[in-house]
Amino acid sequence: MKTKKIILPESQMPTQWYNIVSDMKNRPLPPLNPATKEPVTLEQMSALFAEELMKQEMSTERYIDIPEEVQDLYKIYRSTPLVRAYGLEKALDTPAKIYFKNESVSPVGSHKTNTAIPQAYYNYKQGIRHLTTETGAGQWGAAMSMATQHFGIDLKVFMVKVSFNQKPYRKLMMNTWGADVYASPSEITAAGRAALAKNPNDSGSLGMAISEAVEMALQNPQDTRYCLGSVLNHVLLHQTIIGEEAVKQMELFGEYPDVVIGCFGGGSNFAGISFSFLRDNLTKGKNTRVIAVEPQSCPKLTRGEFQYDFGDVAGFTPLLPMYTLGHNFHPSDIHAGGLRYHGAGSIVSQLLKDKVIEAQSVPQTETLAAGVLFARTEGIIPAPESAHAIAQAIREAKRAKEEGVSKTILFNLSGHGQIDLYAYEQYFAGKLRDYEISDNEIRSTLNELDKII
Amino acid sequence: MKTKKIILPESQMPTQWYNIVSDMKNRPLPPLNPATKEPVTLEQMSALFAEELMKQEMSTERYIDIPEEVQDLYKIYRSTPLVRAYGLEKALDTPAKIYFKNESVSPVGSHKTNTAIPQAYYNYKQGIRHLTTETGAGQWGAAMSMATQHFGIDLKVFMVKVSFNQKPYRKLMMNTWGADVYASPSEITAAGRAALAKNPNDSGSLGMAISEAVEMALQNPQDTRYCLGSVLNHVLLHQTIIGEEAVKQMELFGEYPDVVIGCFGGGSNFAGISFSFLRDNLTKGKNTRVIAVEPQSCPKLTRGEFQYDFGDVAGFTPLLPMYTLGHNFHPSDIHAGGLRYHGAGSIVSQLLKDKVIEAQSVPQTETLAAGVLFARTEGIIPAPESAHAIAQAIREAKRAKEEGVSKTILFNLSGHGQIDLYAYEQYFAGKLRDYEISDNEIRSTLNELDKII
Repeated sequence: MKTKKIILPESQMPTQWYNIVSDMKNRPLPPLNPATKEPVTLEQMSALFAEELMKQEMSTERYIDIPEEVQDLYKIYRSTPLVRAYGLEKALDTPAKIYFKNESVSPVGSHKTNTAIPQAYYNYKQGIRHLTTETGAGQWGAAMSMATQHFGIDLKVFMVKVSFNQKPYRKLMMNTWGADVYASPSEITAAGRAALAKNPNDSGSLGMAISEAVEMALQNPQDTRYCLGSVLNHVLLHQTIIGEEAVKQMELFGEYPDVVIGCFGGGSNFAGISFSFLRDNLTKGKNTRVIAVEPQSCPKLTRGEFQYDFGDVAGFTPLLPMYTLGHNFHPSDIHAGGLRYHGAGSIVSQLLKDKVIEAQSVPQTETLAAGVLFARTEGIIPAPESAHAIAQAIREAKRAKEEGVSKTILFNLSGHGQIDLYAYEQYFAGKLRDYEISDNEIRSTLNELDKII
Repeated sequence: MKTKKIILPESQMPTQWYNIVSDMKNRPLPPLNPATKEPVTLEQMSALFAEELMKQEMSTERYIDIPEEVQDLYKIYRSTPLVRAYGLEKALDTPAKIYFKNESVSPVGSHKTNTAIPQAYYNYKQGIRHLTTETGAGQWGAAMSMATQHFGIDLKVFMVKVSFNQKPYRKLMMNTWGADVYASPSEITAAGRAALAKNPNDSGSLGMAISEAVEMALQNPQDTRYCLGSVLNHVLLHQTIIGEEAVKQMELFGEYPDVVIGCFGGGSNFAGISFSFLRDNLTKGKNTRVIAVEPQSCPKLTRGEFQYDFGDVAGFTPLLPMYTLGHNFHPSDIHAGGLRYHGAGSIVSQLLKDKVIEAQSVPQTETLAAGVLFARTEGIIPAPESAHAIAQAIREAKRAKEEGVSKTILFNLSGHGQIDLYAYEQYFAGKLRDYEISDNEIRSTLNELDKII
């Protein structure tokens, strides 16, 4: 009988993360202090983040050991399955072989736990007993809640108010794991109070939520730190557990991918699935195509510029070298909330600049159509974010058919959509629309940036 | 490092279901035609259900081969992990070893797909292209939607109206997999129209939804059949895939359980986890304790009577020999919707009568407290139904500590609670209450039954 999926036994699970920086021809430019335009120091960064995480952020070591305690917690759901999508292949009548890595089996339903667990661990080891973070739709906040709970760390999550009100399920997940969740803007920070004084009906933004979480962490430097779920190098590093497993699993299938695809928000699930295959491109002369897929309505990779920019709307973070639409770019209200971010992490941006990876954008309706086809052929309802990767995989499979060539496609199913079904309801009701962004719109927010590069 | 979980490779997956009837000293009494009080025939049953399923319903073969097509679909999520609950053990400071089988990794989040897939398959093989069923909270309807979609079978789901309105997520899951979902009572059946004529605001019941689904199937005998998600023998048979895997996985851990625990609604997840271990009790002189756990508010096993009763409220089904509270018993409005059923399947009822298994009841607040502890120690938020099994496992682990003895406990995590978080919200808000049922209340619905046994 045909092998449908491969799960690694615990004894064969990877014990190291892969740091792609060590193999990059051009390493990412450093983050800069906005005031001095000088590179930020480990000391400066460690006021906000756990020191070991900042060492990883700046590390050029090729491999970093995964602590045993982290490996133990990974075992709750890892290795995740690597699956052959026979059903989807058949529906597309394609000569291509389609594989996907199924990160949706994690206890929060997405890949976010891969970095939440080590982030909680390193903070715990440093004696930190309070963490703050922000969350948009709630995936990241749920993952951190699950992880901090394990280490007895108190977590405060600032959740964008509009999601807090519209998505009670993820808030309840966080509460069940013991986290305190505040609708942002809140009354418990100066930034929040200022926003509410200006507009009592402010429905919040990720930028504002970051500001509140950072403020609260900085006010209690002795025992509180802040944590972030994407963009930064150490976050991408932790996610390479996905690809390190996938390499072994593809080997067990007797395959090597011609194309590797991940959806793209800040870069974490994309890095997770792709960096371990890029390693062979960078060091062994392989030429696997690696494609980052972003929403048409938030096209920083395909239509943005490579610039130094802030990671947040309010301008509290260091300046990061990134493909960006400008930190004041307001993404349209699409359902893939995790992909509504103005910039790309430094490593991925450098890889794109150096043409090591490709980028594609996909309109929302195409992604939902792909999600429905996947649900009906593979049995799993994908998150709207992951449906972007599926849409691109379908494009590649169709092209293979047109060209009459076989090829092996691997994409990352970053999460399931069981708590994001509103997007599907809108789709079936014919109410979903696509958002074309004008060049002027992009120019206006890009023109606000200092041109440091 | 300690092994946290074991997942069987696809090559080691069981290829047969186990039919416990073949090993029972006293086989279950037959279902009776209510009009004649004679055993119903295969022909009569096959008007409503696929014929092959009815052969399984009446089979005394010890093992039944799982068709290859069903095995292929099982591979979407099986084998499910068997997990050692180190975190829960530590929190309880117990000498007991606690294991659980994690059925929550299925694409619908529960064990229901284990029987939905073969039910869709056997109907498909018979040329049936239309199926009807009912669903309460939506777990079963979602599982059938996923399964029928694969075989190109059109599915109509009658969903209890109060759930239809309150639980849009599961309805949307069914739509995403292509099923038509009707709020019951509906206008598309005579039974529904009659109920609405009597009370336009009728919020529905599982009994009414069954009536509508059965009516629609019987009206189109040439190409339409009905299907059911618990209680019946063939449903329990399919669920034994859980235990057949668990036996192998416990062996790989080098363990054999002293206690096996499943929550109990109609019997399907309970049968799934326990029958394969009971086989050794029945045939090899083992004496593993096997415990069915029901809600205090729906105590058919612990306070009901062994009687012939209808499976539905309206009295459309054959009479089944069961521990029952009477088919007019109205369970309280607890959050474990899957356990709000008045009777137990025939096989399980016979096993309880013969003292082969035990039964326990647990109050709702204890189950939610157990669910929260499990979420915080093992990282997975359990369904309110599954939390009943966890509560009993905790009782057993605490007893082991009091008695100073080690013992090995295995329970079934039948599903996750990611879409049932309202129960947890109520719990945290202190709004959850327990429901004591008076003896008079139970007597009143039992007294309505004909005493055929």
